[in-house]
This record gives sequence, C-alpha cells and structure tokens, in this order.
Amino acid sequence: MTIFSKIIAGQIPSYKIAENNRFYAFLDIFPLVKGHVLVIPKTEVDNLFDLGDDYLSEILVFARPIAKAIEQAFPCNRCGISVVGLEVPHAHVHLIPINSADDLNFTRGKLQPTPEELKDAQQKITALLA
Amino acid sequence: MTIFSKIIAGQIPSYKIAENNRFYAFLDIFPLVKGHVLVIPKTEVDNLFDLGDDYLSEILVFARPIAKAIEQAFPCNRCGISVVGLEVPHAHVHLIPINSADDLNFTRGKLQPTPEELKDAQQKITALLA
Repeated sequence: MTIFSKIIAGQIPSYKIAENNRFYAFLDIFPLVKGHVLVIPKTEVDNLFDLGDDYLSEILVFARPIAKAIEQAFPCNRCGISVVGLEVPHAHVHLIPINSADDLNFTRGKLQPTPEELKDAQQKITALLA
Repeated sequence: MTIFSKIIAGQIPSYKIAENNRFYAFLDIFPLVKGHVLVIPKTEVDNLFDLGDDYLSEILVFARPIAKAIEQAFPCNRCGISVVGLEVPHAHVHLIPINSADDLNFTRGKLQPTPEELKDAQQKITALLA
C-alpha cells in the first residue's frame, strides 16, 4: 500500500481539498509554493500514463475547479501542472500557482509550512470550492 | 493567431509527431532533453484549464501513446508532464523523458539540436506510433 493509498484511506492524515469516486486532492505538506496541491487517483498505478482511459479522461476535469480555486486563493499568473513521479510510486499531479518557471522547479528547496499555515491554505482553497 | 496556431495551419514548419481532430503534437525545437514533445489543442486558449471538458478529457488520452513512444525511444525513467504556459498564450502540455527532476526544470538551459537531430528524434517517436 503506497503512502498515498494510506492518505486516501485516512490512515495518514492529510489536508484534504476535494474527493470523488476516482480521485483525492490534498495539500503537499512540503510545497514548492503556498497553495501546492496533489491530485491522486484512488488506484495504485506508478506511471500516470498507465491509468485507464476512465481515470485519464477525468483527472484534469476533476482538477479544473481545484486549479481555479488555487488561482483565486493565491496571487499567481496561473495554476501550473507537473507530473514527475520519481519519488512516490503512485501517480500524482502537482497543481502549483506559478509566477515564473522556477515555481515549478522541483530541484529547488521546498517550503516547510507550519500546521497553521497549511490549515489556512486548505481553508482558502476549499472555501472557493464550496 | 498564435505561433502554435500557425504551426497547426502549416504556416510555420514543425516536426510533427501526431494529430487528430482536436490536438497536434510536435517536437519542441529547444528541448530540455532529447525527445521533448509539445501537445497543443487546435483551439486558442491561453490557460489549459479554460479548455472545455471535451478537450480537457481527451488531451491525456491523446498524449498517452506519444508518451509511451517517447519512453521507448529515449532512455528514461518515465515520460514526465509539465504545463507552464508563461511564454506562449496557447495552452500546451510538455511531454519530456525524465531521469531526474532536473529534466523538468524549465529554468535550466535548453538544448539546440540540429535539424538532423530533430528529424532523427521525430522518426524514432513516430516509428513507434505507426
């Protein structure tokens, strides 16, 4: 069971943003920038492109309102997307509010927000999804 | 008319990888790594998340066989995805064969392959799509 499946199952706590029958979205606790959200399928597949057509066709449609909420909640040019996947063997899409290409640069140092800062980001985004 | 619409229309030449009624894929001529492909919708929208559900639900399904061909054609851990969009106001998805997070780092210098190298990359990928 991957760490992400444990998050979906509630065995590991997370700052949940949204969920439906196929996907779960939550805050990255080591964000590149404030408002960094992960969208994961509720099926364990390492490579995103190994998801079935059902998941692959719905993941960006599921992500859209979250991305729009991120764009409203955090000052940015737009919500960027990145799929890297070299660390956790469970496909995940990064949604990140960007102002420059460096905001999507995974080689730079991550932020270490406090629980209060994460809770605040969660509330800002979910309030816009309600 | 964006530079990408001119490429779709054939007014600007490109190293075409694949095409259907909604999308066009071609080589990035200033790739981060060899095998870097761009997938664009045949409609002019700046922000990917402003595409309609029809486009948004099909873009990764269209990209999948291309990503799989890239993974076979170029030594890599997997095909990564990035959507940045700060330079050309026409939504585009980067498909990049990655071995490390730095291979998706858009702040690093781009390659400047020769026409022969681009033609070779095009042939390697399209041969696997045939």
